[in-house]
Amino acid sequence: MIHIIVGKVKRVLQSCGAMAASEEDVKLLGSVGSPFVIRVQIALKLKGVEYKYVEEKLGNLSETLIQYNPVYKMVPVFVHNGKPISESRVILEYIDETWKQNPILPSDPYKKALARFWSKFIDDKCVAAAWKSVFMVDEKQREKAREELLEALQFLENELKDKFFGGEDIGFVDIAALFIPLFQQVAEFQLFTSDNFPKLYKWSLEFYNHPVVNEIMPSKDQQFAYFKARAESLAASNK
Amino acid sequence: MIHIIVGKVKRVLQSCGAMAASEEDVKLLGSVGSPFVIRVQIALKLKGVEYKYVEEKLGNLSETLIQYNPVYKMVPVFVHNGKPISESRVILEYIDETWKQNPILPSDPYKKALARFWSKFIDDKCVAAAWKSVFMVDEKQREKAREELLEALQFLENELKDKFFGGEDIGFVDIAALFIPLFQQVAEFQLFTSDNFPKLYKWSLEFYNHPVVNEIMPSKDQQFAYFKARAESLAASNK
Repeated sequence: MIHIIVGKVKRVLQSCGAMAASEEDVKLLGSVGSPFVIRVQIALKLKGVEYKYVEEKLGNLSETLIQYNPVYKMVPVFVHNGKPISESRVILEYIDETWKQNPILPSDPYKKALARFWSKFIDDKCVAAAWKSVFMVDEKQREKAREELLEALQFLENELKDKFFGGEDIGFVDIAALFIPLFQQVAEFQLFTSDNFPKLYKWSLEFYNHPVVNEIMPSKDQQFAYFKARAESLAASNK
Repeated sequence: MIHIIVGKVKRVLQSCGAMAASEEDVKLLGSVGSPFVIRVQIALKLKGVEYKYVEEKLGNLSETLIQYNPVYKMVPVFVHNGKPISESRVILEYIDETWKQNPILPSDPYKKALARFWSKFIDDKCVAAAWKSVFMVDEKQREKAREELLEALQFLENELKDKFFGGEDIGFVDIAALFIPLFQQVAEFQLFTSDNFPKLYKWSLEFYNHPVVNEIMPSKDQQFAYFKARAESLAASNK
């Protein structure tokens, strides 16, 4: 009798598992070369989550994307079982909460707060200054933005205590910070070297050498093409 | 025998509780009238967390504050058992994770992602546009910022489905959004009325009437004094 019940429970559990697997619909709308899309791709790869990638063309976004992200009209958009989420850091948190394996945020609330603080800092202070340091028309403004960027990098340099920001393996802040070496690759000036920011420089090598990052990272040409298209798209929207 | 053991366990638990209570050191460095400080105060009040409030003078911040928040040199700074956290949304998440009672974020990961998205939207789109709409020297730029702000408010109006953004009780997005009615109170122009944004207008009344919000909210004079000091402090730092 017990065997029969156990057998039934097993079959029910198996069929539930099969249903869950077939119901899992994971999609990422991105543009090759976008550092914000790469963030999401790295997180999904670290978690081992399978997904469908849909390429969006900057300057000519699909109606689906605009419907999913009417506020910012930007990639990445992550769609889980039909429900869309925008903003890369919001997506990363969702992924970390939904697929618990290989956590990218620390479990300790204080360490988690610090990870949120520094990843927000990267978006607020580094990303904007990096763009301005290249694309501002006025040379003085470009120079000012470059100084702000170097100041922000100094904070990150001081914050790096271990191999990665996340400790011995890559985590939330590392994934957010990928913008910095990627930007250095495509920008025309040398942002950080082993001389001015030795810890950040070493980190960038470790980061690029990580097998998951290595597999995800697009080619330099693809990165360059993205930054060019993004700049053109921004210029067009400011007209 | 059982009674003796139960008694012992009770005493141990009581002494643990007493220890925990005496070790709990909660401090908030703020400036009266700052909407970002009020966010933290509302969260702490909703949770019933006792804390020590330390007033900081804008334009003449204490060395302690600068030591705690060297990156932004701004209030609020929240200090829990000697560990400082900056950035109001990061602080709110920490408070919600540390004191579980009366959650301000939904437990469902998707709803949580939406709450993070909209609170970030308020900071990115409403706060900056609101400041610019008042403090930009050029009238055309002020007008442009005002249009951006109204466009952002329309998104929030469409997002309001219930009494509060958080449903039947106030949550993360409501706490973030307090900036908007507070700004309307101190700015010289009518931002939203029962005509142009009826749902947002009704929400602002419900929000102000909430007993916790009502208790925390500073007087109009205090709010005005804060905005004036903040504008002067910004003007001085841009010189």
